[in-house]
Amino acid sequence: MNTFGRSFRITTFGESHGQALGVVIDGCPAMIPLSVEDIQPVLDRRRPGTGPLTSQRAEADRVEILSGIFEGKTTGMPIALIVRNTDARSSDYDSLRQVFRPGHADFTYQEKYGFRDHRGGGRSSGRETVGRVAAGAVAAKCLARIGIDIYGMVEEIHGVSDPRAMEEEIRKAKGEGDSVGGVIRLSATGVPAGLGDPVFGKLDAQIASAMMGIGAVKGVEIGDGFAGARMKGSEHNDPMDTTGFLSNHAGGILGGISNGNEIVVRIAVKPTASIALPQKTLSVSGDEQTISIEGRHDPCIVPRLLPVAEAMLALVLLDAFLEQEKYRNFKETRI
Amino acid sequence: MNTFGRSFRITTFGESHGQALGVVIDGCPAMIPLSVEDIQPVLDRRRPGTGPLTSQRAEADRVEILSGIFEGKTTGMPIALIVRNTDARSSDYDSLRQVFRPGHADFTYQEKYGFRDHRGGGRSSGRETVGRVAAGAVAAKCLARIGIDIYGMVEEIHGVSDPRAMEEEIRKAKGEGDSVGGVIRLSATGVPAGLGDPVFGKLDAQIASAMMGIGAVKGVEIGDGFAGARMKGSEHNDPMDTTGFLSNHAGGILGGISNGNEIVVRIAVKPTASIALPQKTLSVSGDEQTISIEGRHDPCIVPRLLPVAEAMLALVLLDAFLEQEKYRNFKETRI
Amino acid sequence: MNTFGRSFRITTFGESHGQALGVVIDGCPAMIPLSVEDIQPVLDRRRPGTGPLTSQRAEADRVEILSGIFEGKTTGMPIALIVRNTDARSSDYDSLRQVFRPGHADFTYQEKYGFRDHRGGGRSSGRETVGRVAAGAVAAKCLARIGIDIYGMVEEIHGVSDPRAMEEEIRKAKGEGDSVGGVIRLSATGVPAGLGDPVFGKLDAQIASAMMGIGAVKGVEIGDGFAGARMKGSEHNDPMDTTGFLSNHAGGILGGISNGNEIVVRIAVKPTASIALPQKTLSVSGDEQTISIEGRHDPCIVPRLLPVAEAMLALVLLDAFLEQEKYRNFKETRI
Amino acid sequence: MNTFGRSFRITTFGESHGQALGVVIDGCPAMIPLSVEDIQPVLDRRRPGTGPLTSQRAEADRVEILSGIFEGKTTGMPIALIVRNTDARSSDYDSLRQVFRPGHADFTYQEKYGFRDHRGGGRSSGRETVGRVAAGAVAAKCLARIGIDIYGMVEEIHGVSDPRAMEEEIRKAKGEGDSVGGVIRLSATGVPAGLGDPVFGKLDAQIASAMMGIGAVKGVEIGDGFAGARMKGSEHNDPMDTTGFLSNHAGGILGGISNGNEIVVRIAVKPTASIALPQKTLSVSGDEQTISIEGRHDPCIVPRLLPVAEAMLALVLLDAFLEQEKYRNFKETRI
Repeated sequence: MNTFGRSFRITTFGESHGQALGVVIDGCPAMIPLSVEDIQPVLDRRRPGTGPLTSQRAEADRVEILSGIFEGKTTGMPIALIVRNTDARSSDYDSLRQVFRPGHADFTYQEKYGFRDHRGGGRSSGRETVGRVAAGAVAAKCLARIGIDIYGMVEEIHGVSDPRAMEEEIRKAKGEGDSVGGVIRLSATGVPAGLGDPVFGKLDAQIASAMMGIGAVKGVEIGDGFAGARMKGSEHNDPMDTTGFLSNHAGGILGGISNGNEIVVRIAVKPTASIALPQKTLSVSGDEQTISIEGRHDPCIVPRLLPVAEAMLALVLLDAFLEQEKYRNFKETRI
Repeated sequence: MNTFGRSFRITTFGESHGQALGVVIDGCPAMIPLSVEDIQPVLDRRRPGTGPLTSQRAEADRVEILSGIFEGKTTGMPIALIVRNTDARSSDYDSLRQVFRPGHADFTYQEKYGFRDHRGGGRSSGRETVGRVAAGAVAAKCLARIGIDIYGMVEEIHGVSDPRAMEEEIRKAKGEGDSVGGVIRLSATGVPAGLGDPVFGKLDAQIASAMMGIGAVKGVEIGDGFAGARMKGSEHNDPMDTTGFLSNHAGGILGGISNGNEIVVRIAVKPTASIALPQKTLSVSGDEQTISIEGRHDPCIVPRLLPVAEAMLALVLLDAFLEQEKYRNFKETRI
Repeated sequence: MNTFGRSFRITTFGESHGQALGVVIDGCPAMIPLSVEDIQPVLDRRRPGTGPLTSQRAEADRVEILSGIFEGKTTGMPIALIVRNTDARSSDYDSLRQVFRPGHADFTYQEKYGFRDHRGGGRSSGRETVGRVAAGAVAAKCLARIGIDIYGMVEEIHGVSDPRAMEEEIRKAKGEGDSVGGVIRLSATGVPAGLGDPVFGKLDAQIASAMMGIGAVKGVEIGDGFAGARMKGSEHNDPMDTTGFLSNHAGGILGGISNGNEIVVRIAVKPTASIALPQKTLSVSGDEQTISIEGRHDPCIVPRLLPVAEAMLALVLLDAFLEQEKYRNFKETRI
Repeated sequence: MNTFGRSFRITTFGESHGQALGVVIDGCPAMIPLSVEDIQPVLDRRRPGTGPLTSQRAEADRVEILSGIFEGKTTGMPIALIVRNTDARSSDYDSLRQVFRPGHADFTYQEKYGFRDHRGGGRSSGRETVGRVAAGAVAAKCLARIGIDIYGMVEEIHGVSDPRAMEEEIRKAKGEGDSVGGVIRLSATGVPAGLGDPVFGKLDAQIASAMMGIGAVKGVEIGDGFAGARMKGSEHNDPMDTTGFLSNHAGGILGGISNGNEIVVRIAVKPTASIALPQKTLSVSGDEQTISIEGRHDPCIVPRLLPVAEAMLALVLLDAFLEQEKYRNFKETRI
């Protein structure tokens, strides 16, 4: 299942070392001004090779728009976006062809499909997110029209939350041939009350699915999340007065529907699976091996997941907005 | 959206104080022996009024099978199950007609629909889960055939994890007119490797959606979850040898696909929103009010969510199993 | 797959001789006045036993609303409707348990499920349409609010189109222990231009799916249909002037999108499969048999399919309307 | 909605005069040998400019595989295929920018989206089918593995069915600046009994949707179709003996499920809308005009629709096969 969304649907494709990565966006409103300039800067944010602490793979990641735009505006037709792979040094991965890297999807893809594109993890690679981020940029353009704004930040790396200490944790892990994880906090402002559908299309359920669908994410919280499970009702409930809600423990969602407050989401990102330290594993043929993964790997994937998580939140919110619009006519014409 | 699942699809209906609650199950395999006896005991587990610490609403919750069964076996046709509401004292709720209860969906339903069934929260009530639990019992019957077993437990109440201390926390909250939340741990054994679809149908994304779609759930973790975000790669990765995985930090899922290990899920349940303590809120017409919610409420909803969470996990796993089966023929006939 | 629709979704359930038949409607706009009185008269139109030329099964078909209505209005929550079976003389069908009736789904259900509810055809019975017709009545109520009106008529029975001759054909077939088919013409007025989505959600494709999904329907035409395939472009194209379209060979749909003209659909209904005349067939165990089907059967099903076809057209049009509304905001706020 | 299918899902994109046309196939079984050589010949069949009676647009239509293939075999990941537009003489269409061509989707796209890519009809062009045909070639490759074969033929052009007379009708229409329609007959052999789902996923409903979703198709018949509506039950029912069905009036489908017989489908194709003869129409600004459409148009689109219709039938059958496979395990392990 490579399609996400009900009204604003994206279908992504492409592997780490294939010809190209991309996305088809279906259900985009017509007449939205859109060009490469709206998408490229967002893609550049998730690009590898942009800092000393990220993977050194040097991909230009130039996006090309294949369809759905006419004279600078969306037409309502599917928008196909592709990014060609250029710096795909597949031979780097020859040694990994016959082995399952711990913490990676190698074993599960092999079990599921009986076969896998081992080069850079194939489609289980972080490069798969190129299509999501490109689509997220289009969604963000639409959301701007209705006043919704999304903001994400790295809140924690390896348990520390001071920016300089976070950087130090990454540097230390890199030096040790190890890796670290962290926590991302996302928020959305300007979200009108009423988005999200009971009971299986809850806004928080859609967000949870979107976030947990990002590789390396192992936890999702709305509002106070797990901390809320340790509170009393009198602490967690958000009282209201005529100025609105007086707190936001709920993270902007009640009964699965946005309440007009800021949407607050936190996600747990596991440490990068690829590490240089030796690990016990199996070969495809079932023999025990010790593996030490060399190559161009991020000691911490958290910062690069930020634009991906923002993109997914944008996709969910635009989708929920379009879903809710269906009933506009009936709501307005009530007697 | 009141339908959940792709291959094993359930559609639930009904309100706390309506005529009946129920579910239609579509996509159930044929020729599975099924009767009321398979469903009633599971419903009884989630029933109110069964202990001193739960709501005193005395519903018999007798399930009736309306369709899809012939001579004691499923036919492959939709299975409709209903439970009539009997002890619905709607007049208890008259005082709540014009007010938004803090922490409840009253405000958001009103905003979304311009109108709501205020009696007992209508469809946002915990009673809505009757349909899910009934469907989960059917799914569990199917899962038993393929060797998958699901087990849930209350791991924590208001921050404590000793069973007796947990009970004490609930009792104390009740005495204070307050409420407490907690954490549920779910596990599934016997899940074959290969379930779950990259990239948007990941098994963990489906689980996250299912869990966050339960009222009062505000957080979901797979495996080590947020704790994993504070680990190093060398700690979090699960090494393998010929006996299998040597640890299970991943919670049985790699790259969104089950790896054959135990599936481990944790969910954060917020404290019950209905409390006797006075709270600031608004009336439907926008006036400030102080509310104190009397009536038959659970000081802690966590134990009663257990069968709901188990049901949702059963639904996700059966659905993922059926989805994977599609490719059996092609997998077997490879040259 | 017992669910139809994207925005206005119906899920039907029930068998000819089961406990009950019904439907769950999901996605109905809120605050539409709705009661049993809106649904019962439409159900009465499709009821058996209402004329000398229809099946003598005497079902009252009283509809009960289980959910989704509060104080006489829809709430936006799923509307569950059920109709209990009362005159189900299952023993009439004992002789058919071991045999495949020609022209019926007996053989294919057995092949697909390895098992079937043989009583009255189980779910392949025409009684399955009770749920569709009930849901169609709800859809029609919504369509009336936006000025869309649907009208169906029997255009042809066994090749003749004069009403008195049609009746005579049915009478004659009945006398011979045989059956006849016919053609239904449906139209919808007040449909605004712009409904239907290119390229796989075309309005005509949705209609074709809805119509061919009715048991016994073997052909669907939009506008001139097959007659149009024998025309020239200069004859078939509908010219326009300032008064609108000057003809309607297209049946109100161009490129899969409504053009504001009347929607015109024709469907071919095969002759009733159950006939008293002897036919060659097989038993479940594979032996050759001659079968003569006695019992309460319609010599012509066409008039009773009329409300079913109208219901399906109503469902498609309301669904397409809601789908199109999604983009209202973006259309209105264009700069 | 540019996605078709449930298990084998295709999403097409692209306009007549955009950068490229294409398709993303999601849900293809893994390890199927696949290369450009499997797809290109099928695309060549639908290509314009290949005969004196077809459009003279000279597109090479070279397909490129962007993803989903590794070492010559499918991986189970999405397969993205693109075809670049090369001979897109957009300026040919400048005169059509401000006018609605009769019989085309110009008017309805303008109404729906408020805006359209007028060049060659944009996405409503027949060129949109490139993606479908490419996907159909992949589906056909899979179907071959399970013994299903599809065959289509032009049965009728402008009411005549002799091949030489058909060609003459096209030539005559061309000479007159007019166009003609026709009828295509499709059949599928080797389809196992049991494909198709009651009640809304009927195999014939899926086929009807697929066929009516092809531009210019205005009618669909299964088996005897409209002719069957003029028969008696004793004529239309297909009797069985131990050798199987003795006739095939049902076209291989009973109760929406394949019966093992040949699947037979007929579709009505309207005459090409673009004709040189003068026609009354409106400009975008609402003025009356007379239009005469010059340029590279087919006087009869029927032969070029043949590979498109075959592709759509292949997609439906493969999808239905995969859907049915879900239940294999439960069917085989019955006690």
